[in-house]
Amino acid sequence: MQHRLEKQFNFIFEIDRLKSIYRRTMVKSDNNRAENSAEHSWHIALSAQILHEYAEQEVDIARVTSMLLIHDIVEIDAGDLFAFEEAALQSEQEAKELAAAKRIFGLLAEPQSQQMEDLWVEFENAQSTDARFAKSIDRLLPLVQNMANEGGSWAINKVRKQQVIQRNIYLKDLSPKLWDYVNRQIELACKKGWLIED
Amino acid sequence: MQHRLEKQFNFIFEIDRLKSIYRRTMVKSDNNRAENSAEHSWHIALSAQILHEYAEQEVDIARVTSMLLIHDIVEIDAGDLFAFEEAALQSEQEAKELAAAKRIFGLLAEPQSQQMEDLWVEFENAQSTDARFAKSIDRLLPLVQNMANEGGSWAINKVRKQQVIQRNIYLKDLSPKLWDYVNRQIELACKKGWLIED
Repeated sequence: MQHRLEKQFNFIFEIDRLKSIYRRTMVKSDNNRAENSAEHSWHIALSAQILHEYAEQEVDIARVTSMLLIHDIVEIDAGDLFAFEEAALQSEQEAKELAAAKRIFGLLAEPQSQQMEDLWVEFENAQSTDARFAKSIDRLLPLVQNMANEGGSWAINKVRKQQVIQRNIYLKDLSPKLWDYVNRQIELACKKGWLIED
Repeated sequence: MQHRLEKQFNFIFEIDRLKSIYRRTMVKSDNNRAENSAEHSWHIALSAQILHEYAEQEVDIARVTSMLLIHDIVEIDAGDLFAFEEAALQSEQEAKELAAAKRIFGLLAEPQSQQMEDLWVEFENAQSTDARFAKSIDRLLPLVQNMANEGGSWAINKVRKQQVIQRNIYLKDLSPKLWDYVNRQIELACKKGWLIED
């Protein structure tokens, strides 16, 4: 029993490192420093709870929240890759992340270790409605942050309108109301010159 | 309906500011910079899920997680007060935090606004087993971080053994196994000179 608890505390301390993984998204309220993946995970987990009512398919919000809390932990080993990187880099990143999931969730004892890994894989591969809703929120938040920050990481990295539309496509079936919102925001971003029109 | 959604996005962007509220706890993996309250909230929400099995009273882990995700949002207005500050400052802080809860959760439409405020009050006043378990995890994590960091914020701020014992007292009834763990860690910290023996 004691061994199990020690493993859990080792895991809890190991994931402290997610606070040192920085993303392209910027924190407007903190002098536009880069956002880290730990605070990002907090923000989307809570946002999913706020926006749950707009899911038009049945969603288990407790599972969605758990997915969002663990979804980026693999970046401790694999680093963060910008959402709009080219396909070859994305594919290489996938292999790195799977190895990271095995190592990091493997710090826990069974069955918790396998349960966490399974939940991560379900999210990663968008294998369920819960996973697709979780992914939708993960992808929606940078839009909220960039719209409040003169285009933020879109403007700096010259992102194109069609890339953002594609990135948010799960919302189309899952939550038409949020999908409408996203499209209105994207149109506005194009008018402002924060996204490149194709 | 649209008005409601706009309020929700205003709230979601407003709470971005929690990423700029810094605590005394340090992030070892990131050159010992101060930890912010957003990434701290992520860490404890996930830790609560990992350690749920040690609660010896019935705990609704989804509610606990929600509490932990929102518990520090009031610091956006009230700032973070070090856990071991004197009583007069603590009492002043409570009034500031209640006003902050009214303003920030008030950005949402009803009934979501009142539900969030009620959940925060339940946590704040430790009014239920869920709230006490949530508070226990909030208080346990700095111990994990400080033990892995040569005493961390305890050593720097000359914290006393009895203060840490008192701070973790909810665990005594709620989770004897975690309470034992905490006591062993505190003894070790005293031996190392990271906590002051009374």
